[in-house]
Amino acid sequence: MAPHGDESSDVAQSESRRPISTVVFIIAMQAEALPLVNKFGLAEDTDSPFPKGVPWVRYHGSYKDLHISVVCPGKDGALGVDSVGTVPASLITYASIHASQPDIIVNAGTCGGFKIKGANIGDVFLVSDVTFHDRRIPIPVFDLYGVGHRQAFSTPNLLKELNLKIGRLSTGDSLDLSTQDESLIIANDATLKDMEGAAVAYVADLLKVPVIFLKAVTDLVDGDKPTAEEFLQNLAAVTSALEETATKVINFINGKCLSDI
Amino acid sequence: MAPHGDESSDVAQSESRRPISTVVFIIAMQAEALPLVNKFGLAEDTDSPFPKGVPWVRYHGSYKDLHISVVCPGKDGALGVDSVGTVPASLITYASIHASQPDIIVNAGTCGGFKIKGANIGDVFLVSDVTFHDRRIPIPVFDLYGVGHRQAFSTPNLLKELNLKIGRLSTGDSLDLSTQDESLIIANDATLKDMEGAAVAYVADLLKVPVIFLKAVTDLVDGDKPTAEEFLQNLAAVTSALEETATKVINFINGKCLSDI
Repeated sequence: MAPHGDESSDVAQSESRRPISTVVFIIAMQAEALPLVNKFGLAEDTDSPFPKGVPWVRYHGSYKDLHISVVCPGKDGALGVDSVGTVPASLITYASIHASQPDIIVNAGTCGGFKIKGANIGDVFLVSDVTFHDRRIPIPVFDLYGVGHRQAFSTPNLLKELNLKIGRLSTGDSLDLSTQDESLIIANDATLKDMEGAAVAYVADLLKVPVIFLKAVTDLVDGDKPTAEEFLQNLAAVTSALEETATKVINFINGKCLSDI
Repeated sequence: MAPHGDESSDVAQSESRRPISTVVFIIAMQAEALPLVNKFGLAEDTDSPFPKGVPWVRYHGSYKDLHISVVCPGKDGALGVDSVGTVPASLITYASIHASQPDIIVNAGTCGGFKIKGANIGDVFLVSDVTFHDRRIPIPVFDLYGVGHRQAFSTPNLLKELNLKIGRLSTGDSLDLSTQDESLIIANDATLKDMEGAAVAYVADLLKVPVIFLKAVTDLVDGDKPTAEEFLQNLAAVTSALEETATKVINFINGKCLSDI
């Protein structure tokens, strides 16, 4: 029950009753982002809202009644590979919230899945909640801070309408899986493993912006193929499945209020 | 040799020839920061330059000819512990550069040290260069991106004058040490282990701000005591050694140009 006479709660309620206007996608790899950029007819910013010299890329435009941005951390200046992982993801989430004041953030991307928890290659999951599995701080309370458990914004109607699979996501900065990572992922009871989600959730929580996660399974962590090989092999096909689901999500969101999704 | 007629190089040269005016300290724990805040007579901002709601704390003031800020990520909103680790450190580095446009960043804090590499409890090191040890991405080039090797700003005169120990720092988000972390720290040939340095270096490099690192050893990673216990036991005494060295560094920097330190 909402407290009576709470001004900030009234503001939050009236906010949640106007249609969603601005959506920011945070996507780590440009190969994951481009199908969405093309689908929504977005164009790369000519006048970037980000500081000079950063490799961050924002694609921007209108699709139906929505202002949509797709923001990627871009290519590492020295090495030319996508700037994957929690640090670039947290920075672009912070800078994108500042630049676009979105009503909702969608962190979309590929991930590893656990077949023992029901994940298959090509599945696109809506994430229920997130944790970290590589921030071990064995001091009371700091241990919980390290795990960093956070709920995704609750979207019961979206979940039902699109008939998506739902599961917990655990985040770490490694593509491979150490013994300790595996123990913590099991302790976290996660179905999915990625390299950005919990960091995006952290920043969205800091700045009080609702965030949801669409994660498409490129590799089975508990399967029998090497992760890097399976990831690269499935990237293109799974990215296409991700684009399809993200389009359905955007079509569902269009014209609705936060409280209706 | 600098290229002739390169305008940006000329600007950089003239920048490096005016005295350093603004210094930002990035410090993860308030217990590490407060001795410096008191020493330099800084006051907490009443009108924070940071977004509403974030726990980040900036202490600010003038000391000799310098504008000094000490910025901490503050206490986690839900759990009340210091917001340690790479994600908050990268965010406050980014936001502090935006707010203060510093001439130089100093990332100061406690760390673990390897006695086999010459570290002792209470030593304060100047860091030569940084790496990550918990970003394993076994795909060519991505592997190097994960390690994220970066040089600290070169300060040969400071090093000589203050007679500091120098060593490589490796960063990860865990206080403990997994087998994989240990292998990578050894592969990285690091003397010191912390939870923020390489992330601060990453952001400083993105935004082209010189950064140096002062790291004081609270625990021996290859010693015989449990890390968390040794860390908590030595925190107060080692923080005092850190304050003493940071004061010497500031006194040395005062009145000098970047190219003279």
